[in-house]
Amino acid sequence: MGIRVAVAGASGYAGGELLRLIAGHPELDLVAATAHSRAGAPVAAVHPQLVGLDLVLGATEPAAFADADLVFLALPHGESAALAAALPAGTKVVDLGADHRLRDADAWTRYYGGAHAGAWTYGLPELPGQRAAIAGAQRVAATGCYAVATILALAPLIAAGVVEPDDVVVVAASGTSGAGRSPKVNLLGSEVMGDLSPYKVGAHQHVPEIKQASGAATLSFTPVLAPMPRGILATVTARPTGSAPADAARAALTGAYADAPFVHVLPEGAWPHTAATLGSNACHLQVATDVDSGRVIVVSAIDNLGKGAAGQAVQCANIMLGLPETTGLSVYGVAP
Amino acid sequence: MGIRVAVAGASGYAGGELLRLIAGHPELDLVAATAHSRAGAPVAAVHPQLVGLDLVLGATEPAAFADADLVFLALPHGESAALAAALPAGTKVVDLGADHRLRDADAWTRYYGGAHAGAWTYGLPELPGQRAAIAGAQRVAATGCYAVATILALAPLIAAGVVEPDDVVVVAASGTSGAGRSPKVNLLGSEVMGDLSPYKVGAHQHVPEIKQASGAATLSFTPVLAPMPRGILATVTARPTGSAPADAARAALTGAYADAPFVHVLPEGAWPHTAATLGSNACHLQVATDVDSGRVIVVSAIDNLGKGAAGQAVQCANIMLGLPETTGLSVYGVAP
Amino acid sequence: MGIRVAVAGASGYAGGELLRLIAGHPELDLVAATAHSRAGAPVAAVHPQLVGLDLVLGATEPAAFADADLVFLALPHGESAALAAALPAGTKVVDLGADHRLRDADAWTRYYGGAHAGAWTYGLPELPGQRAAIAGAQRVAATGCYAVATILALAPLIAAGVVEPDDVVVVAASGTSGAGRSPKVNLLGSEVMGDLSPYKVGAHQHVPEIKQASGAATLSFTPVLAPMPRGILATVTARPTGSAPADAARAALTGAYADAPFVHVLPEGAWPHTAATLGSNACHLQVATDVDSGRVIVVSAIDNLGKGAAGQAVQCANIMLGLPETTGLSVYGVAP
Amino acid sequence: MGIRVAVAGASGYAGGELLRLIAGHPELDLVAATAHSRAGAPVAAVHPQLVGLDLVLGATEPAAFADADLVFLALPHGESAALAAALPAGTKVVDLGADHRLRDADAWTRYYGGAHAGAWTYGLPELPGQRAAIAGAQRVAATGCYAVATILALAPLIAAGVVEPDDVVVVAASGTSGAGRSPKVNLLGSEVMGDLSPYKVGAHQHVPEIKQASGAATLSFTPVLAPMPRGILATVTARPTGSAPADAARAALTGAYADAPFVHVLPEGAWPHTAATLGSNACHLQVATDVDSGRVIVVSAIDNLGKGAAGQAVQCANIMLGLPETTGLSVYGVAP
Repeated sequence: MGIRVAVAGASGYAGGELLRLIAGHPELDLVAATAHSRAGAPVAAVHPQLVGLDLVLGATEPAAFADADLVFLALPHGESAALAAALPAGTKVVDLGADHRLRDADAWTRYYGGAHAGAWTYGLPELPGQRAAIAGAQRVAATGCYAVATILALAPLIAAGVVEPDDVVVVAASGTSGAGRSPKVNLLGSEVMGDLSPYKVGAHQHVPEIKQASGAATLSFTPVLAPMPRGILATVTARPTGSAPADAARAALTGAYADAPFVHVLPEGAWPHTAATLGSNACHLQVATDVDSGRVIVVSAIDNLGKGAAGQAVQCANIMLGLPETTGLSVYGVAP
Repeated sequence: MGIRVAVAGASGYAGGELLRLIAGHPELDLVAATAHSRAGAPVAAVHPQLVGLDLVLGATEPAAFADADLVFLALPHGESAALAAALPAGTKVVDLGADHRLRDADAWTRYYGGAHAGAWTYGLPELPGQRAAIAGAQRVAATGCYAVATILALAPLIAAGVVEPDDVVVVAASGTSGAGRSPKVNLLGSEVMGDLSPYKVGAHQHVPEIKQASGAATLSFTPVLAPMPRGILATVTARPTGSAPADAARAALTGAYADAPFVHVLPEGAWPHTAATLGSNACHLQVATDVDSGRVIVVSAIDNLGKGAAGQAVQCANIMLGLPETTGLSVYGVAP
Repeated sequence: MGIRVAVAGASGYAGGELLRLIAGHPELDLVAATAHSRAGAPVAAVHPQLVGLDLVLGATEPAAFADADLVFLALPHGESAALAAALPAGTKVVDLGADHRLRDADAWTRYYGGAHAGAWTYGLPELPGQRAAIAGAQRVAATGCYAVATILALAPLIAAGVVEPDDVVVVAASGTSGAGRSPKVNLLGSEVMGDLSPYKVGAHQHVPEIKQASGAATLSFTPVLAPMPRGILATVTARPTGSAPADAARAALTGAYADAPFVHVLPEGAWPHTAATLGSNACHLQVATDVDSGRVIVVSAIDNLGKGAAGQAVQCANIMLGLPETTGLSVYGVAP
Repeated sequence: MGIRVAVAGASGYAGGELLRLIAGHPELDLVAATAHSRAGAPVAAVHPQLVGLDLVLGATEPAAFADADLVFLALPHGESAALAAALPAGTKVVDLGADHRLRDADAWTRYYGGAHAGAWTYGLPELPGQRAAIAGAQRVAATGCYAVATILALAPLIAAGVVEPDDVVVVAASGTSGAGRSPKVNLLGSEVMGDLSPYKVGAHQHVPEIKQASGAATLSFTPVLAPMPRGILATVTARPTGSAPADAARAALTGAYADAPFVHVLPEGAWPHTAATLGSNACHLQVATDVDSGRVIVVSAIDNLGKGAAGQAVQCANIMLGLPETTGLSVYGVAP
């Protein structure tokens, strides 16, 4: 008998990916999976890729998680706090939602609205000191998908003083699973195939999270929906503080992730692309200096449901549970 | 130290998927991977999804495989026989190519051309008696991608006498990785996205293989290239021999695959679709009777690089090596 | 001032394509466009590709069409009959829906349900005698999308006695716009990209329409949803009546469409593919004989919103209005 | 008899789109189309979407264009100058290549290499005074694809003093047709579908062209290949010079394009997306201010083969020939 885990919000895309990762994890036993509108449905009716996983979705109520040592919350923003508060204090929780990421209550209200639930330990193990913090935490707030891609590219450069924290400019494109599974006309396959579509231009809710975790002072962030199911490609540019910034940036990234099993600074000349990370927990990075403007450009690629959501959450759970960080996760993408 | 395996022809798509599966396999150690034109390149330069796999591709020569207990051949059709003949008799071999699939030399010559290399044990464990045959074999010819999808749908129905072996009609669509990695204008992304394109209409080389393994007497097979990297959806229709053929066909399929861990006859009302099998070794099946014509229609979905190629080959290797059939393979797809 | 036309049901995909074709048509003036739930919205808010077309959608009521010489109905199945009955007898109507296609009331009830509205002149000008019938008709029922692709491939072969009318087997794949614009989880981009998905297996509602117009006696028809916005590729197979059926079939097709400006029998060796027809009113055809089964295989490609819906409807309108059949329509696809 | 035009380099994607536009143009007659390696092939064998266009590709030699009043050059960079020099002085020429765009010979050498051919009239009619300049020119250098999208978004803002010309940051994603039709492994459908891939990071050759035409002083430009055949989405950000920059930017854009039939500043709240421009000559624009950084963000969408190449070239030709600017071009996209 392994460690008993459960998933709240199992009918969405992040929930489905969590179920897949847990099913392949050698140390975790799935004891419950719940969903709101799909309660009562077999898992495989909701996630056809999980045919063979014989489990019926339950209702998302605190009692459903009584047997779990650790609960993953994959709920809409604003719904995690109430459920988490109703779970026993001894139950470990990894929240994939945004509710407990921000330390600044004002920023929460401005970008998300509603009451601020308070911050938990931030679930990005690759940040300095954060692996230990996660290991000692009962409750962890996993990082947002765009935030993972951006912070991993940016934080070491600001920490090393290679780039200025002001006027960071990020354009990041995501696969459509990042927009969720609720049926909307603008997310229909007929509309998204062959299409690049910006949204929330000028005010995306991941901005305060990225600033909090990366040290950026001001940040322009533009998200774009791309015609693919998964993947985030973030183009992060910042003004250099000195000369030869590409070498310094490269050294900062390489140093920061020397012991990070999932983050790879690619060999010079190779650029990250999203397909190489599909289905994995990997983050690929590369850096260059723009010859005209002198800006440092770091490009980052992840699977938004992997390192951007479910993989990241399992990585945090592994650390919280004292397991090797890589247990049940792959660093290799499914390609082509 | 695990069982030592090697891959010949590691630069193509099936080769890359083999490397990924071997890297995640708990009992196999990759000791060599070779390629023709890419010899000398790091694996990750050829397969960016395998960043972190530190291995340099060697040249495809017999000496490269001296340390291997088992060799996977992922070579172009017609190139396996010579290499296989040069390997020590004690070296187990799984050939993903077509060279050793057909028992009928005339059929080989007609569909492939050139000299017939002779048949090996056919690597489709789900056929009656075949799991045992593979377990006892030193050399196994893994099944072709379209052939897997079609045979699994058809063979039990013919064996059970539910459908006539004459005038079977199959239309099967494949993702573009099935067409290989050689650069051709008609395979460019600009050409294949948004496009369905038939090819080899009326004379596909998998026809004799399907007939040999399924018992079909005459078979019309039309392949179509579909705008997706992976996946095969085969629509297999045959004339019924009696009344209520859907129930009989369903019973035949369910019975045939009761002990097959990778083949799932879906619940009634659910239809196979390719995305649910991506990255896995699963085959999904469903059956219906056409209300107008009375034909039995079986639809089958696989990942052409999974159960259709590399996954199938690892499954055969597991059986040849006395390992549990499912070791290192997943029945769950990566979706969405 | 040109001929005044209107579109009922302008918010869906066929409706949008009608608006685009009418806007580019030198003889037609769009005087009204209506929609159910989107009444009151500017056209460009519903169809962003039509930015610059300054028109507000009206409500779908008979009064909205008072000024129109000809009305296109792009309504859900079952909703055309009531509106058509309320239009003045002198108003020409082209119905893109199914309501008036079938002559057999029983077939209507079996496949669509509800009361049969009665058949109108069938809007497929390429059938023998049909161009003249359409020219003399006030009310025309345009052909269904799958039906266009299948009938154009099949009807001349049956008429010429080249194939048997029994046991025709068709597998046809369609882009997702064929499934409509109502938001559903299974039509989300995340679900359809990378996916081939069969549906309505064994009982598609286009079967009686295809039989009525092609002369097929029994027909197995399997539709598949393909990961692209537009296009239908139909693989139509039938048993030959004599020897050398491919030549006879080719002659039958070439003869049947000698004067059809939108139907092209491709040069031998070239096969139809859907991308070549995107945005156009073209149908591409090719034929072969299967070497193993002897079946005649005709492959047909169209744009499901072009020749399969809006283009076909405009072609019929041109004929009804005494205009050259090709006015405002293109035979050239937008590719790549 | 219309105006006689010819296309050099007709086998690529821009060439194919030129042929399609010319075939549908009421005033232009195509008298020759040439290609290098495909000389002797029927057009439809090279461009299956042009079945019905009965023309054989000739060799790209000056004599092939003797009968043409106007020649479109769709040749690889560096090949236009020699051919153009060999054409009669009275033959009008529109060059879709880069050879004659840059006024700065040093910039040419730095970004393209080789000898500088000298600048022609710059073919972007929407720039101030440029429509008249094109009308009077015999030789016009049409704008690069990324350059069109960026310049139309940026030039009016710099001209109006709304943004600073320094430290402009652009990230632009393009469909794969922008990468050309030469077969390369990284452009195979299997590789590009599901993938976002940056390239030429830090030094793209459109940078000097964008600076020359927009007034930008320093510019960071990062191009990304997106999984779709066509379309460019450019995200252009610049630092504001004053307060309320979004309103000022909007006014600048609206004013600049008041008489431009193909450029649309969308209603507030609506954002450009590429699918809405497919197959058309439209450019869609929208602007916002980033709430955190204060940067002005303009997003621009075009079809890279339309307004980004062939459509733009036909628009220039119309102006050079004294025809209405919109003749034979559509402002409406083919969607979905």
